[in-house]
Amino acid sequence: MLILGIDPGTANTGYGVVRGGGSAAPTLVECGVIRTRARDPLPARLREIHEGVRELIERHRPDAVAVEDVFYARNVRTTVVLGHARGVILLAAEQAGLVVNEYAPAEIKKAVVGRGAATKEQVQFMLTRLLRLKSVPQPSDAADGVAAALACLMGANLPRLDSTGRNREPSRPSLRTRA
Amino acid sequence: MLILGIDPGTANTGYGVVRGGGSAAPTLVECGVIRTRARDPLPARLREIHEGVRELIERHRPDAVAVEDVFYARNVRTTVVLGHARGVILLAAEQAGLVVNEYAPAEIKKAVVGRGAATKEQVQFMLTRLLRLKSVPQPSDAADGVAAALACLMGANLPRLDSTGRNREPSRPSLRTRA
Repeated sequence: MLILGIDPGTANTGYGVVRGGGSAAPTLVECGVIRTRARDPLPARLREIHEGVRELIERHRPDAVAVEDVFYARNVRTTVVLGHARGVILLAAEQAGLVVNEYAPAEIKKAVVGRGAATKEQVQFMLTRLLRLKSVPQPSDAADGVAAALACLMGANLPRLDSTGRNREPSRPSLRTRA
Repeated sequence: MLILGIDPGTANTGYGVVRGGGSAAPTLVECGVIRTRARDPLPARLREIHEGVRELIERHRPDAVAVEDVFYARNVRTTVVLGHARGVILLAAEQAGLVVNEYAPAEIKKAVVGRGAATKEQVQFMLTRLLRLKSVPQPSDAADGVAAALACLMGANLPRLDSTGRNREPSRPSLRTRA
């Protein structure tokens, strides 16, 4: 099972492609960042993000996409612009016939570290352990994309948390066969 | 000069296609709503909005797109979901090589009625007058799309307002030739 994890951002959209599932240990296939230039107009940046995600999907043919949720930023304008980026990412997944699994930051931490309130450093440490890497994936946006993919792979066996960190009904990552 | 005006929404994206500019009175070419079903997942709804806007652009070949800004809703979650819809609309315009002009609600009211604090009814009354229509464009989301297009057509001669209704530097709608 191959998961494309994405941490949306208008400047830096981090991603990680992770293979795993069943009894096999998860392995990192690729991770990185889709960068856009701050001086470009928003529509041009959205096109770069959309094309970047489409290209990743075409190259890796993942079974599902895992995207970090963004309803939690403190600045409303930043959050709304992030919503634009997230919109074109969800569109790219939908256009490829893939189901998108969305995870709140606390859910990703819970799946990877075991605690919804884990620090960024604890998440990065566990990523490195679980994927048997020599160092933390860089930059941190790429690590966040990898964490989202891992959460999707591991999430089937874990209780889901809502945005307040409370348990909600258990769910499994959904898979849909590509058309 | 042909302008496609859009009022973004996840459930109802209103649009209006208006021809005008120079000394000719503006005329309404078409208006309507791209509707999506609330029970469909967000990625599927985003695809419908994206395809709907692409289809409008292909059919009418507008010179520019005018989109209402969304940084003003009271509910943060609603605003962020609206950001997703707006993202795929900006993407569709960018993919067609069109420049997007963005207008705050107060700018649209100022351009159409002459007052940034005009009521919805005043805007609809002026739309009907300016376009010599027998009745207000229905539903109201379609009227909002028409108002955005009119604001773009008329905006070249008007001072721009910021979100607080204050004047900001004058600007003209940008036009870019399609590739």
